[in-house]
Amino acid sequence: MTERSAYERLKARFGLAATIGECASMLNWDAAAVMPPGGAAARGDQLALLAVLRHQHLTAPEVADDLAAATTDNAWDAANLRLMQRMYRRARALPASLVEAQTKAASACEKVWRVARQRADYALVRPHLAEVVRLTRDSAAALGEALGLTPYDALMDEHQHGIGAADVEPIFAAYETFLAETLPAVERRQAAEPAPVRPQGPFPVVAQQRLCRAIAEGLGLDFDHARLDESAHPFSGGTPADVRITTRYAEDDCTQAILAVVHETGHALYERGLPAAYARQPVGEAAGMAVHESQSLIVEMQAFRSDPFLSWLGGRLHETFGGDPACYRLENLGRLWRHVARGTIRVDADEVTYPAHVILRFRLEQALVSGQLDVADLPGAWNDGLKALLGITPPNDAEGCLQDIHWYDGAFGYFPSYTLGAMSAAQLMQAAREQVAGLDEAFSRGDLSPLLAWLRVHVHQVGSSLGMNAILQRATGRPLDPLAFQTHLRRRYLGCD
Amino acid sequence: MTERSAYERLKARFGLAATIGECASMLNWDAAAVMPPGGAAARGDQLALLAVLRHQHLTAPEVADDLAAATTDNAWDAANLRLMQRMYRRARALPASLVEAQTKAASACEKVWRVARQRADYALVRPHLAEVVRLTRDSAAALGEALGLTPYDALMDEHQHGIGAADVEPIFAAYETFLAETLPAVERRQAAEPAPVRPQGPFPVVAQQRLCRAIAEGLGLDFDHARLDESAHPFSGGTPADVRITTRYAEDDCTQAILAVVHETGHALYERGLPAAYARQPVGEAAGMAVHESQSLIVEMQAFRSDPFLSWLGGRLHETFGGDPACYRLENLGRLWRHVARGTIRVDADEVTYPAHVILRFRLEQALVSGQLDVADLPGAWNDGLKALLGITPPNDAEGCLQDIHWYDGAFGYFPSYTLGAMSAAQLMQAAREQVAGLDEAFSRGDLSPLLAWLRVHVHQVGSSLGMNAILQRATGRPLDPLAFQTHLRRRYLGCD
Repeated sequence: MTERSAYERLKARFGLAATIGECASMLNWDAAAVMPPGGAAARGDQLALLAVLRHQHLTAPEVADDLAAATTDNAWDAANLRLMQRMYRRARALPASLVEAQTKAASACEKVWRVARQRADYALVRPHLAEVVRLTRDSAAALGEALGLTPYDALMDEHQHGIGAADVEPIFAAYETFLAETLPAVERRQAAEPAPVRPQGPFPVVAQQRLCRAIAEGLGLDFDHARLDESAHPFSGGTPADVRITTRYAEDDCTQAILAVVHETGHALYERGLPAAYARQPVGEAAGMAVHESQSLIVEMQAFRSDPFLSWLGGRLHETFGGDPACYRLENLGRLWRHVARGTIRVDADEVTYPAHVILRFRLEQALVSGQLDVADLPGAWNDGLKALLGITPPNDAEGCLQDIHWYDGAFGYFPSYTLGAMSAAQLMQAAREQVAGLDEAFSRGDLSPLLAWLRVHVHQVGSSLGMNAILQRATGRPLDPLAFQTHLRRRYLGCD
Repeated sequence: MTERSAYERLKARFGLAATIGECASMLNWDAAAVMPPGGAAARGDQLALLAVLRHQHLTAPEVADDLAAATTDNAWDAANLRLMQRMYRRARALPASLVEAQTKAASACEKVWRVARQRADYALVRPHLAEVVRLTRDSAAALGEALGLTPYDALMDEHQHGIGAADVEPIFAAYETFLAETLPAVERRQAAEPAPVRPQGPFPVVAQQRLCRAIAEGLGLDFDHARLDESAHPFSGGTPADVRITTRYAEDDCTQAILAVVHETGHALYERGLPAAYARQPVGEAAGMAVHESQSLIVEMQAFRSDPFLSWLGGRLHETFGGDPACYRLENLGRLWRHVARGTIRVDADEVTYPAHVILRFRLEQALVSGQLDVADLPGAWNDGLKALLGITPPNDAEGCLQDIHWYDGAFGYFPSYTLGAMSAAQLMQAAREQVAGLDEAFSRGDLSPLLAWLRVHVHQVGSSLGMNAILQRATGRPLDPLAFQTHLRRRYLGCD
């Protein structure tokens, strides 16, 4: 047996770390989708332990030697090695004790947050959030030092490598200006149109489940490698070989279940399309959370909510649920599922106002991490910020700073990904329309496959061999260009060509 | 911070090993109950890795020092330390490479076995089984040497500590004699009675699911810490805080689903009743597979299939499924669910003939492990053995040596536990009847709680602080006494008092 090279040893090691991550991913799915409540404490221990084992694995003393000695002979392996170096630097920057403390604090905080949100009682969770923020500041500082980034950028870098606050700030500022002009115009135009008619249920859950599965399958999800289940908050999890998406059903409205399934299917198709030859290697993973979000949003917002797709869907909905066929005609479905409204809840927001929610969080979390904003002052800052952006105020903290799990679960620097993803999705769709003939015609038959084939080549199969801007450059001829999103919104909501 | 003692370090280490085991247990449940088929290969890798990590953890160099230095100050901790020593010796006996080779060979063999069984084609899986047996011989020899046991006893010891082939042989020989006399008498008596009438379905799966859950809950299973799902083969898994039982449903017969749920509930109640103060410690675990089986069988065979319980159940069944009430009267339910018949399939066997299936496997697996029996000769030896024990011959290998997953999945030395469990269950029930008043009266109201309370004290809360015979001694005044089982069978099937 020949001795393995340093790079081969690294591949084996990072492969094992990824496999530990797969175990955690499955147990996270289980916790959200099927676990009985009494299993929560033990599950917390299991996940904390897997995080520690993965961390130990990535920070073992021999990794540094192998990283220094490793050589590669093609671009993919070179990219893989660079990503390993980055993961190693990130992992080494944080002592195991801090990782464990963060996991435990986040788990405890998240538990209290559920109660606090239900009671709209921020004071209840405030000390827990203070502890999470304190540990986040510590880890952001340590990561920033190790990576040569500001603390907040070091957090952002985890979710979307290579993108920092300085990249996002001008984009968000421009969007704020765009929104101030565009939103009133959209509202005026919408007010002049007939109000959408909501189809009357009931929408039996079993029928919704069957339809949702058929839609996901129709979009290209292979259920030999996927599951669709229910959870309180829809998400996509699992592993590339076994993706798990969830949604939630309400008997009186099928909108939420269907749109969540379509969104999560976009995420799942990305995971399924990652380069199998580099499975469990850093370079074989998704290229970051903004790119991930671009894949859910290009399927949900760009393709599925387009006129051609909705006109196909209307027939399926009427077939499944019966009732007044007028509700399922394109004009009404479009008005219903592309309705724009200033609201307090991010996850219920339309695509025009959604970035405002993200901008608010982006600014607040920067201030929390830097220490400029105290955890005690968060509710006020939240309400002021939302007022400035959308002119509305939440009636209570449950609809304000308690609405999202992210911070309470220890995730900072993630929020910008949603809007970067929405913008990337618009830009990718623009390019796909130029490069692939007959997209709309396919959509009008409920057929995503021509778009999916294009995404496979230009995004999915790229894995992490390129960063977000390089993927966009290769696919569309330019790095992130926020104007594509504005063009999309103007066309869809103002009828501008 | 004071330095932790050697024993405290060991507790922490074995606690982590148990937590890794919990992760594996959950992923095993997932694979059997919900995983899409395309996830199998990745899952195999995940489970193999967890096995390796657990093994590394238990065999780290510092364990030996701590085991040598550790002192304890009460009987439970002393028992815990002894069990740690045994686990360490077992783990050290096997090199990590052998553990991994076994896991992989078993996983590959099990996959081919599924096809081979479906096609009744033993030749297909024979080379895989040969590899599994070869590795099993290696590990049995290594374990035997480390533990001072014969190779086969070293395998048995894993499933039921302290019980070896020499303990089981006379018990099984005596049962063979008992069976030769008793089975014909039971058959004659049964032939003289009216044939049982099978209730006519359909039995809607949703109604069965609801009833099965209600039955499990009624038996004492707390669904805040449990799940009931479907799988091809019913089993009980998960962790003490989050037990997962499964069953399978057929629209035309509710028997199988209900009895499987009752059986698995017995296992689950044991796990739920283990001493929480020693959770994740060796002494806090179940006392072995024979004791585990005694807890499923005392619930299923001793309690649930008794006259008082069935008379209560009949009403519930008729309420749920309607149809001819005569089918659900005690006499008919008893004839149906306590029907004795010589059959080729172990899992379908009644409690009288079941031990014959176990005796056959016990003898064959000893011969396989010792090398006396070649894997190529297994089908013939199987058929000869079944003929000698029950006077019947399987029509093909699917109903012969291919029927059970155990060997193909690498489990040897496990089979005796089924019959040791059945015998222990009879002995425990005899003692419970002497010590607890009103058991039958409770059963006739569908109430297991007086029996469960007794089992909690005499079995569940004991954990592994005692071995099987010591548990029986403490609960019943004597070690395993196979006559209790014979008495039970004579009473139930021959009406002897």
